[in-house]
Amino acid sequence: MAGEVETNMTPTEEMNGSGSGHLMDFLDEPFPDVATYEDFHTIDWLREKSRDTDRHRKITSKSKESVWEFVKSLLDAWSGWVVMLLIGLLSGTLAAVIDLAVDWMTDLKEGVCLSAFWYSHEQCCWTSNETTFDDRDKCPQWQRWSELMMGHTQGAGAYLLNYSLYIIWALFFSSLAVSLVRVFAPYACGSGIPEIKTILSGFIIRGYLGKWTLLIKTVTLVLAVSSGLSLGKEGPLVHVACCCGNLFCSLFSKYSKNEGKRREVLSAAAAAGVSVAFGAPIGGVLFSLEEVSYYFPLKTLWRSFFAALVAAFTLRSINPFGNSRLVLFYVEYHTPWYMAELVPFILLGVFGGLWGTLFIRGNIAWCRRRKTTQLGKYPALEVMAVTGITAILAFPNPYTRRSTSELISELFNDCGALESSQLCDYVNDPNMTRPADDIPDRPAGPGVYTALWQLALALIFKIIITIFTFGIKIPSGLFIPSMAVGAIAGRIVGIAVEQMSYHHHDWIIFKNWCRPGADCVTPGLYAMVGAAACLGGVTRMTVSLVVIMFELTGGLEYIVPLMAAAVTSKWVADAFGKEGIYEAHIQLNGYPFLDVKDEFTHRTLATDVMRPRCGEPPLAVLTQDSTTVEDVEALIKDTDYNGFPVVVSRESERLIGFVQRRDLTLAIKNARQKQDGVVSISMVHFTEEPPQLPADSPQPLKLRRILNLSPFTVTDHTPMETVVDIFRKLGLRQCLVTRSGRLLGIITKKDVLRHMAQMMNQDPESIMFN
Amino acid sequence: MAGEVETNMTPTEEMNGSGSGHLMDFLDEPFPDVATYEDFHTIDWLREKSRDTDRHRKITSKSKESVWEFVKSLLDAWSGWVVMLLIGLLSGTLAAVIDLAVDWMTDLKEGVCLSAFWYSHEQCCWTSNETTFDDRDKCPQWQRWSELMMGHTQGAGAYLLNYSLYIIWALFFSSLAVSLVRVFAPYACGSGIPEIKTILSGFIIRGYLGKWTLLIKTVTLVLAVSSGLSLGKEGPLVHVACCCGNLFCSLFSKYSKNEGKRREVLSAAAAAGVSVAFGAPIGGVLFSLEEVSYYFPLKTLWRSFFAALVAAFTLRSINPFGNSRLVLFYVEYHTPWYMAELVPFILLGVFGGLWGTLFIRGNIAWCRRRKTTQLGKYPALEVMAVTGITAILAFPNPYTRRSTSELISELFNDCGALESSQLCDYVNDPNMTRPADDIPDRPAGPGVYTALWQLALALIFKIIITIFTFGIKIPSGLFIPSMAVGAIAGRIVGIAVEQMSYHHHDWIIFKNWCRPGADCVTPGLYAMVGAAACLGGVTRMTVSLVVIMFELTGGLEYIVPLMAAAVTSKWVADAFGKEGIYEAHIQLNGYPFLDVKDEFTHRTLATDVMRPRCGEPPLAVLTQDSTTVEDVEALIKDTDYNGFPVVVSRESERLIGFVQRRDLTLAIKNARQKQDGVVSISMVHFTEEPPQLPADSPQPLKLRRILNLSPFTVTDHTPMETVVDIFRKLGLRQCLVTRSGRLLGIITKKDVLRHMAQMMNQDPESIMFN
Repeated sequence: MAGEVETNMTPTEEMNGSGSGHLMDFLDEPFPDVATYEDFHTIDWLREKSRDTDRHRKITSKSKESVWEFVKSLLDAWSGWVVMLLIGLLSGTLAAVIDLAVDWMTDLKEGVCLSAFWYSHEQCCWTSNETTFDDRDKCPQWQRWSELMMGHTQGAGAYLLNYSLYIIWALFFSSLAVSLVRVFAPYACGSGIPEIKTILSGFIIRGYLGKWTLLIKTVTLVLAVSSGLSLGKEGPLVHVACCCGNLFCSLFSKYSKNEGKRREVLSAAAAAGVSVAFGAPIGGVLFSLEEVSYYFPLKTLWRSFFAALVAAFTLRSINPFGNSRLVLFYVEYHTPWYMAELVPFILLGVFGGLWGTLFIRGNIAWCRRRKTTQLGKYPALEVMAVTGITAILAFPNPYTRRSTSELISELFNDCGALESSQLCDYVNDPNMTRPADDIPDRPAGPGVYTALWQLALALIFKIIITIFTFGIKIPSGLFIPSMAVGAIAGRIVGIAVEQMSYHHHDWIIFKNWCRPGADCVTPGLYAMVGAAACLGGVTRMTVSLVVIMFELTGGLEYIVPLMAAAVTSKWVADAFGKEGIYEAHIQLNGYPFLDVKDEFTHRTLATDVMRPRCGEPPLAVLTQDSTTVEDVEALIKDTDYNGFPVVVSRESERLIGFVQRRDLTLAIKNARQKQDGVVSISMVHFTEEPPQLPADSPQPLKLRRILNLSPFTVTDHTPMETVVDIFRKLGLRQCLVTRSGRLLGIITKKDVLRHMAQMMNQDPESIMFN
Repeated sequence: MAGEVETNMTPTEEMNGSGSGHLMDFLDEPFPDVATYEDFHTIDWLREKSRDTDRHRKITSKSKESVWEFVKSLLDAWSGWVVMLLIGLLSGTLAAVIDLAVDWMTDLKEGVCLSAFWYSHEQCCWTSNETTFDDRDKCPQWQRWSELMMGHTQGAGAYLLNYSLYIIWALFFSSLAVSLVRVFAPYACGSGIPEIKTILSGFIIRGYLGKWTLLIKTVTLVLAVSSGLSLGKEGPLVHVACCCGNLFCSLFSKYSKNEGKRREVLSAAAAAGVSVAFGAPIGGVLFSLEEVSYYFPLKTLWRSFFAALVAAFTLRSINPFGNSRLVLFYVEYHTPWYMAELVPFILLGVFGGLWGTLFIRGNIAWCRRRKTTQLGKYPALEVMAVTGITAILAFPNPYTRRSTSELISELFNDCGALESSQLCDYVNDPNMTRPADDIPDRPAGPGVYTALWQLALALIFKIIITIFTFGIKIPSGLFIPSMAVGAIAGRIVGIAVEQMSYHHHDWIIFKNWCRPGADCVTPGLYAMVGAAACLGGVTRMTVSLVVIMFELTGGLEYIVPLMAAAVTSKWVADAFGKEGIYEAHIQLNGYPFLDVKDEFTHRTLATDVMRPRCGEPPLAVLTQDSTTVEDVEALIKDTDYNGFPVVVSRESERLIGFVQRRDLTLAIKNARQKQDGVVSISMVHFTEEPPQLPADSPQPLKLRRILNLSPFTVTDHTPMETVVDIFRKLGLRQCLVTRSGRLLGIITKKDVLRHMAQMMNQDPESIMFN
């Protein structure tokens, strides 16, 4: 039977639509067990949806037959929630494991815990019970490498030993990561979000969300983050969560056999991924909705929210950091902000926009270079080189030596009384009696000035190294590095404004703004605003970004500064180019992604885009009752289109349907094997009744069963903006073009994307897949 | 010119599609100033979108011509943000004004402030500076009516005086409200959300969002809420915010002249409305997304969020309650919840679902009765009767006498040390030294038992009266009454569980759960969970409900109980009927609303739905070059379809386009007046070239300009689920049905809705409009 066997078709370079449709008389037959799409092809959303409706209809009608069937139908209805629960549990657990492992291995670069080598610095000192809030290096159980090997931590020798061991560990971790990726799961590299966006829009990449990718990505993510590279775990966590989603899809045929339904689960999994990455379930759902998902029905919204919550609570129950905080960077500020502060906030927004532009341009240029030159042939070497340079440059500066999330955490923090950080080294003014827990509006001490220099150097270092890091062949996210860039810049600006307001408190602006003796400026808030601006500039997230930040601070108080910075950053960055980093990478890779956010505003018509163009050979069509088996086989052999329109006759060119190449091949093969009298000169007919044939002609072959009688058509005068809209909203793969009922041509998704690229003065050949 | 003059067409009972299309050669002409849609018709989303793209294209190309044009293009690009800002400011201000007025007028029913009669009870006592946390009635400036008139508040006489004045004020307020609504703005009645949902889906109701409606709805909302009826201001506030949105749309031709763009603004305005109603901006955006909006592009998400935030901050800046709280019911609980408590929470969810079902069925039955019987002819009498009954029954019970939001606020509250409420009358156990600010796990005092009885009576009263109140001809929301029902039930359950855990602390379940001496149960949390469950049962909101509740409590801690209750309530209610109250009212009114959430799962085909059916006269069509002016005029006169397909010839039936009735009428009228030689027997042609005519025939009339060359077509074999999907996602008004290029029939939105109603065993005639 057609569709029951998976053939080994060679992937075709040029495709001409395929597999649309609602084979109404085909529905009673079982669907093939394997997915019906080729690798690197796009699914037909309408078809998937209609298949699911059929499945649902069958279950509903069966459920009335017996109690067992009724129970089965209930199980089917609940399977969505079960999958969400499992995704939440697994991705929460994996996030906790990753956190614990990263914590331990990051500290391993500096030293080891004597009481138990599997303890991180914090756990080691925490269990030793001797120091609590004291200095980091005063915990006796924790020994730096120099202490362990040379017995002391002072002097150039000890420093050099620590320095070289730091570099060696970093190189070891990253080389292990790149080898694992290369050998076991090449898809585990990168952030994964561009590919997930494309997959969610209906593209098939086999194995991208497979078990191996899940395993290797989890392991190598730990290694990559621990190696001290300028990358984060947030993007890859979304990939990991989507792999979990895909894994649990295979438990239920409802999801494993329907690519459309599977994508609903993956959307929710993406939400769970962001939820555990930041501890922000609502932000995660909005991220999935705004940034990642293509088709997001409201049912999915509710389930995504469920998955995101379960994931967040699982992570909190495991409690990897021992502080039972849900969010990654929990902050609490005590000072309100003032209207005048909006000026530096907006300036930070401008900085974020510029950084976003610089990063996207630089990173894409570098990635293109990697793709096109010799560079791309030695990924392991590249990873080692980047790791080496990062480690060499990072170690001397205390702000780059530690893990990036710790750095961000410190930069976000308000200086409290218990804070021992260099950044909080303010000179105490003995003349003023101030509450102990706030220190702004005091002159900065030498520590703050040292910190400023170190932060400035760290900023330059992070800006440059991140451009070269994102895209190397290990898992790498850019949320954390982007936020770090913004947080450093923000903190510097914050301290500057704070010191200005202290030293020039007689200026008219500060006079109105700061009452003497009261707090004015919270440098930590500037760091947070800067982080939001830079993240916004790179990803062009808006609502989800603000909501994630809102969940981090837990109050609506600071949402206006965050919004002001996010919106400025987006506008500035958009002025230089509409694409966020993910869209830029999608385009670089030539994925067939039809962005919902792009507006198509050109005045072209369907007739300008359809194939065949003027001068090209006519469209390959079948006739409803005047083609022989031989002719069909020749057509299949000579062309590599994915499907063929069926017309009444070549003269009238009146369209009656569309038939898939795959179905045609299988049907003829089956008929030749099983059906008597089917020979090369047998007539093929797609009509209900066999055609009138001479008496001596062989038995005709009826193929109406595989004919899609409802192909999608537009007229040749349809504006392309409508066609693009139809492709986007209905998720079509191809569309036939007619004029007064006559078939003129065909438009595939690839044609649409190429036309859009052309209209934007980009290379239409950059679209690689259909 | 066609389209420049608005004709007085009589509304037609039966319509046959109209006004689709992209008149490509028509675009250079100015669009008519008045909206091009009739009242009670549905817009064509594709057409609106394409019109906006054209407008945008024109502005972009002009902006390169001069500096002034460039500035104009910038203004145009910014106008969206300006509109959002204005909406936020105005709806925030209106919400504050409504709050203040309601506060004053509600108190006016009980007494008056001697120092300034325009002060509410709270303001009066607050300014008198004599009492702060003391009993409500101990403020000397505030006098109850009996005190003012008789000099004392004790005794039956005083009680009766207060009672009758309470009723008189209530009757006065509600009669004023109903008269204002009847005389000035009949659309100001009801909650408005069903109509706004329909309007956002593309329906036109002239004046529903007009200035008069805005004014009268604001005033009458205050009167209605103050009259003590069992209704809330939340739904009407959404209507008020949408009126603001519509008002500001008229400032910018971008929005006022494009019904599609206007709906983007209205979606954002709805978010702003919920934002000020609850002080929950994120919840507001999600409410708009989940519940109200039909077409919600991501650009709108960001703008909605902006509008919602501006509105919330405006409200907070005005600070009507003097407590600078953003949220309506701010609560803070100090006790965690225990897993075992999920059982009562889920029971509350079941209660919520049952209440939702009871309410929807009862209310719809009553509203249908009102529509079909004499009852509907005396709306003012009905309002007076309901007000009278409410006031008579409400006054004796302290929990129904006060305003419903105050009641909910008290029920949500945790009993603190300063709480003087009857609900917190617990017996202090002298043997235990407990912190002062928590009281659970003490035996209930007599006050609590009295309160329980009164609450039980209030619950029964609220359940019954709300069913009859929602739908009377004054502004009435049901969020607050629904929440009140749930909060009362929840508090009762909460107190019961609490007392059980106190009196039976040796039961195994309580033993594991409550450590002796520690708090166990927070009855306020039960009230909140109950409120969420009941609101969910009535409206079927899910994510937005949980997020609104999350914003009220400000912590993720209690999200699991809320989710458990919300999801249970939705499942229970869905088991009795899929429709929420808003969808039920939409259906009752016969609005053409194609719900995005409904799944169409039947196996019908386009051919089963299209007109003409078997036996009906053939479809009224025009031919491209063989119709005379006379024929066209006769066709327009004889039929009342909104448009006509144009075919090559009646024999071939090959479709070439679609022409609107309106355009046809105007074009012929204009031609007859202005164009020489056009007489009744002139040929009308839709082709580029005039047809070959005999030499003596009059000059033909070319109408290609008004022909839509890209009508939407499907084949007769297309499954209806696909057709429904296309109508939903593309926002079509009609779709032509073809088979092998031949025109067979037409499907309008009304046909689709009628078919869906029929498939669900509902009366297809209930769909009134197209």
